[in-house]
Amino acid sequence: MTQSDSKKPDPEKTASVVIIGNEILSGRVQDLNLAYIAGRLNDFGVRLREARVIPDHEDAVVATINEVRQKFDYVLTTGGIGPTHDDITAECVAKAFGVPLEINEEARAALQARVGGDKLNEARLRMARVPVGGKLIKNAVSAAPGFQMENVFVMAGVPSVAHAMVDALESRLTGGTPVRSRGVVVHVSEGAVAAALTGIQDRFPDTDIGSYPFYRSGRFGTTLVVRSTDTASIDAAVEEIKTMIREMGAEPEEELEAV
Amino acid sequence: MTQSDSKKPDPEKTASVVIIGNEILSGRVQDLNLAYIAGRLNDFGVRLREARVIPDHEDAVVATINEVRQKFDYVLTTGGIGPTHDDITAECVAKAFGVPLEINEEARAALQARVGGDKLNEARLRMARVPVGGKLIKNAVSAAPGFQMENVFVMAGVPSVAHAMVDALESRLTGGTPVRSRGVVVHVSEGAVAAALTGIQDRFPDTDIGSYPFYRSGRFGTTLVVRSTDTASIDAAVEEIKTMIREMGAEPEEELEAV
Repeated sequence: MTQSDSKKPDPEKTASVVIIGNEILSGRVQDLNLAYIAGRLNDFGVRLREARVIPDHEDAVVATINEVRQKFDYVLTTGGIGPTHDDITAECVAKAFGVPLEINEEARAALQARVGGDKLNEARLRMARVPVGGKLIKNAVSAAPGFQMENVFVMAGVPSVAHAMVDALESRLTGGTPVRSRGVVVHVSEGAVAAALTGIQDRFPDTDIGSYPFYRSGRFGTTLVVRSTDTASIDAAVEEIKTMIREMGAEPEEELEAV
Repeated sequence: MTQSDSKKPDPEKTASVVIIGNEILSGRVQDLNLAYIAGRLNDFGVRLREARVIPDHEDAVVATINEVRQKFDYVLTTGGIGPTHDDITAECVAKAFGVPLEINEEARAALQARVGGDKLNEARLRMARVPVGGKLIKNAVSAAPGFQMENVFVMAGVPSVAHAMVDALESRLTGGTPVRSRGVVVHVSEGAVAAALTGIQDRFPDTDIGSYPFYRSGRFGTTLVVRSTDTASIDAAVEEIKTMIREMGAEPEEELEAV
């Protein structure tokens, strides 16, 4: 983002992710996009407030898009923009906005360059259709682009493509201060730390302290995560948590992969 | 389910899964429950129509529960039933139904038996709280139970526990005929099969044919999945798909792990 098109960031820009696909709802496929998108939105300073998984049925897609685009600053969708009969996201978004679909010439050229020769058949050309007023989202992996329609960002479902697309949205998804976090892992149960933890949460109201039990190698443990936009508050709360754990006779470990 | 408490199954019993947890929305944790729950619901003949991921904030949880319990036959929630301050699902469900929470004596006894001695502190006792009228869902892994409140089934977020709880619901989540599926994997792009596939979908209107592109080891390919309650229709559609693929000079492979 250049200085000229920046404005004072709003710290509470919100987003919803809409995962479109029967294959997720049937349990056939494990979604691999939400965690990645959530992490990138956080990097951009955008607060992901909810996610939904819906079937690729027109009524469900149109109604959901129209509900969430009113409720949140940004909506990101995944899935349903390929060339087959079950890829209905583009027409559903057009319907939600009450505009027609049109062949986008830049998208057609990108597809033509990728598939070559006379292979840009009618089915593949479906992937160049964008609602009137839409703006392309580049696909560096497989050419078929996503598109932005006002505050709705329509992306592919294939994880490598979806991830590349959300990466490409950094300049368009402007938010505020990212939420930072630190995690502390301890091999005691949640029930043993709960009371003291409530006290720490109360003393650091500008942090959000989460407690996540786990069960690994036959042992229960707890990951305590402190999240805030203020790193000084995070650090102070983490120190209190570590002291609490040591006073219980256990040893806190810093979680390395915290987002 | 015994014969005496069975009734004629409704083929269109529907469900929504509500995943409650900031850790999923922050991208810190990958959800590992939805695909499993989706598969089990399908085994039970229940149609999973949507899933939502929401934060552990009271307003969001109460509003979502009240919306989806009206819209679907069954609602299954995961997360937020532990002993810490951020575990608010039980009170939110009680609030959604307008009833108080009470200590369930069976749950208290199970927790007491598990933790032993005087370790059933105030925090752990929170896990024995159930809305008035609720019915326990057994937790064979870590004792703290889930509960059913009318058509809402409240389960833990820890995957091993959540999976055991949904397994335990087989007799309560009665549906109709399970949707079966077969998948065919082919190393051609979606765009090459799209037109012929539309024809096959049109000839088998009682099936739902999905096309899922993938990108593995530098190659694009497509998984074609035929879903239906009628296995004869599935088999006939799969044969047509295989013939179509062979006519293109490619070799179809049966997908082994199709759900």
